[in-house]
Amino acid sequence: MHEALFNYIFRYTGLQLSETEMELVTSAFTFKKLRKKQYLLQEGEICKYFAFIVQGAMRQYSVDEKGVEHILQLAIENWWIGDRESYLMLTPTPYNIDAWEDSELLLITRADLLNLFDQVPAISQMTRQMDDKNSFATQRRLKATISYSAEKRYQDFLTTHPDFLQRFPQHQIASYLGITKETLSRIRKQTI
Amino acid sequence: MHEALFNYIFRYTGLQLSETEMELVTSAFTFKKLRKKQYLLQEGEICKYFAFIVQGAMRQYSVDEKGVEHILQLAIENWWIGDRESYLMLTPTPYNIDAWEDSELLLITRADLLNLFDQVPAISQMTRQMDDKNSFATQRRLKATISYSAEKRYQDFLTTHPDFLQRFPQHQIASYLGITKETLSRIRKQTI
Repeated sequence: MHEALFNYIFRYTGLQLSETEMELVTSAFTFKKLRKKQYLLQEGEICKYFAFIVQGAMRQYSVDEKGVEHILQLAIENWWIGDRESYLMLTPTPYNIDAWEDSELLLITRADLLNLFDQVPAISQMTRQMDDKNSFATQRRLKATISYSAEKRYQDFLTTHPDFLQRFPQHQIASYLGITKETLSRIRKQTI
Repeated sequence: MHEALFNYIFRYTGLQLSETEMELVTSAFTFKKLRKKQYLLQEGEICKYFAFIVQGAMRQYSVDEKGVEHILQLAIENWWIGDRESYLMLTPTPYNIDAWEDSELLLITRADLLNLFDQVPAISQMTRQMDDKNSFATQRRLKATISYSAEKRYQDFLTTHPDFLQRFPQHQIASYLGITKETLSRIRKQTI
């Protein structure tokens, strides 16, 4: 199952890992299976692992004082999931991360990742590029959230993440977009 | 005016620059004055400079098809402003950046910044920390935008940026929070 990660690194950086590098990566990443609804991380914990999703679908969300879930991130295979602030700063996370489908993950601690940076140039290059891409994506999402109508946000989502529609139900997507189920349902009727 | 930047670097990293490093930094950053309402960057341009604000107040915003401004960022002295995606990827920016007050800036191109990384360790350390902090702040703001009530967002803003209240008018702050002027006005009456 580390194959999926090697392929990802190659697609991301254009760099083929050597035999030695593959062994280093294989021993740094731990394999973990989660059944649907099991947690990778719960609010108040420190995010010890970042996860590469080999197979499955995961959600990252907060729960407000009324018990309502707010989806910060949805992710499927070939995505990463984790709370970067908690992972880097060792602060308690405000998020839960759980499996929306049975999932297979490759987990890495911060210490093991820092070691890999020194030993496997492709990993540090990939991480730098991912950090940049993530900061762009988060800023674009913030821009959309504060300045686009619900309709335009949904259209954007369809264009950017067409594959998510088959994997997550409407109420999860509505929460990700910060709109109500009713609004999303109205928009979908208009666009059909 | 480079003094303000040296002090900022020291406060941020705990590192004192040597004489040589100060000269390198001084020659890499260009001083620029903007009068109120002048632009640092306009939509469609490539963001060639990142700006350290020595004095003044700046806004970063997009304008929608109805001509409404949406504030992505407000910034005062000792803040940085620029569109990171356009600066790194050389893509046309969707944002405008202008001076809300007469402002004094120190500008640096990406090429000059990359040179400084090799020559002045404090600069690369500062930049890495800033990138992390920015990604945490953007994610926290996204979380607040999708999951907090307008009241809680305003309260959060008061706690995080008390100094902004004296520098930017209410309608700018409402736009930054993604709420209407009327909602902000109602919230302020309740909290007084």
